[in-house]
Amino acid sequence: MERTTEKEIEALVEEKVKEALQRNLDALVAKQKATEGEKDSRPKRVAIAVVSRGTIDAAYPALILATTAAAMEMEVGVYFSFFGLNILKKSAQDNLKLVPLGNPALPMPMPNIISVLPGMTALATLMMKRDIKKKGIATVQELLEAAIESGVKLWPCQMAMDMFSIRKEDLVEGLPDPCGAATFLEYASDADITLFI
Amino acid sequence: MERTTEKEIEALVEEKVKEALQRNLDALVAKQKATEGEKDSRPKRVAIAVVSRGTIDAAYPALILATTAAAMEMEVGVYFSFFGLNILKKSAQDNLKLVPLGNPALPMPMPNIISVLPGMTALATLMMKRDIKKKGIATVQELLEAAIESGVKLWPCQMAMDMFSIRKEDLVEGLPDPCGAATFLEYASDADITLFI
Amino acid sequence: MERTTEKEIEALVEEKVKEALQRNLDALVAKQKATEGEKDSRPKRVAIAVVSRGTIDAAYPALILATTAAAMEMEVGVYFSFFGLNILKKSAQDNLKLVPLGNPALPMPMPNIISVLPGMTALATLMMKRDIKKKGIATVQELLEAAIESGVKLWPCQMAMDMFSIRKEDLVEGLPDPCGAATFLEYASDADITLFI
Repeated sequence: MERTTEKEIEALVEEKVKEALQRNLDALVAKQKATEGEKDSRPKRVAIAVVSRGTIDAAYPALILATTAAAMEMEVGVYFSFFGLNILKKSAQDNLKLVPLGNPALPMPMPNIISVLPGMTALATLMMKRDIKKKGIATVQELLEAAIESGVKLWPCQMAMDMFSIRKEDLVEGLPDPCGAATFLEYASDADITLFI
Repeated sequence: MERTTEKEIEALVEEKVKEALQRNLDALVAKQKATEGEKDSRPKRVAIAVVSRGTIDAAYPALILATTAAAMEMEVGVYFSFFGLNILKKSAQDNLKLVPLGNPALPMPMPNIISVLPGMTALATLMMKRDIKKKGIATVQELLEAAIESGVKLWPCQMAMDMFSIRKEDLVEGLPDPCGAATFLEYASDADITLFI
Repeated sequence: MERTTEKEIEALVEEKVKEALQRNLDALVAKQKATEGEKDSRPKRVAIAVVSRGTIDAAYPALILATTAAAMEMEVGVYFSFFGLNILKKSAQDNLKLVPLGNPALPMPMPNIISVLPGMTALATLMMKRDIKKKGIATVQELLEAAIESGVKLWPCQMAMDMFSIRKEDLVEGLPDPCGAATFLEYASDADITLFI
């Protein structure tokens, strides 16, 4: 009888353990799915550094990508340094310039000798602005405002401000505090999209 | 004897539970490894936006990176907008230009006053093309074809097409439908490498 | 008595299994936390391709981002190709140039007709160098040295070396072996921040 009992006990234990493990496994799987769901539902993040140019042809792609990403409910931070800082200057809003010089891909190519005549950069800027107006695309100022309203962080670079003697009051309203490269890198290191413009 | 039996049962239960848990743990670990393996075996993705320039010196890096990544079995999508769209134009294939003006890092520096003379951009382009030919490197057209053949997606930007009045038939064959910034951002947000050229 | 024993055994099994599973769950959770901790404690990686320009205004952002990231204990690799390769040339260290031409965002705008006069690029470079010196910011050479000392990998591109007939001895000391686009892409595909300058 002892052997019988032992076998019975063994069977009972097996059954109980099996049941309990299944419940345990289900709980674990559910828990893992919840964790993964959490990761997936964290908003995507876009980090853009606008550095190379402070002209209309850099402002447009940067701000169009930033506002489009914000409209897609992504989290967006744009860091303006070196020449890019120009885009945030109050005084630049009316005359953000397109540079025809050295850009043979411009829709209306001009021989370089013409494009260096004083006034030609202004003319090309005007032409691009008219083109943009005709097609119903927003101005840089409108894009900056749209970006700020939709929660895009537009960081001015502290070092570039020091270097070019630009004060906070020279920049458009609604910007976060100036920051350094370290803050941008920290932010970008958790981003899903990182771009240098 | 009852106490002995209880102890025996206890020992038996401990042993059975331990065995079962070990099997359970092994199964869980194997399952997790399989899931991670799945993630690792998903091909790496590269998302490139070619926007700043539509010249030979933008086309080369973009297409060399794209075709190299495709050869490494990465998944590659390149989005051509603003000036970058020029690279996809049929009419541009023969005269994608290198711009010497304002690029003192060019191997053969020319004083700016010379490089603005009409014809100098053409000369610099010709010189770079010859250099490339001599070293046995592919032309832009060859790289475009190689990219399309190896499955690289070369998206023309719809907004840039509208802005510069470019029709689909003005572009090289074999391209996917034009798309907007949102499509590129969606694609890029799951990429391992994101570049703005 | 048998029934009683069975119930007792059942209760005992339930209890033992419950205890064992709790220990098992705790061990699993601890193990998962350790794995995640490992992932989190892996240093962040930054991959930068410097390609578009070989001038002071490309060298600065690239090297400032690289050395800042290294100071933040990130792992950093910078790949210099096409025009970017110029930054690594020994002979370029004294005269890495700023290009005023076609950059209306420069703090001191010059009409294009003036900036194409021979000597104006040199003047603008000198002015920027003085500005940088006055503000106590490092020179390109100092940044290159700082980058190498802090373990940043500065890869010269083999293809660009071949294309422009540049030998390894033409480049600054302390660089890793030249490599190709594939090596950079492989490295970048595991990076947290990828930038094209």
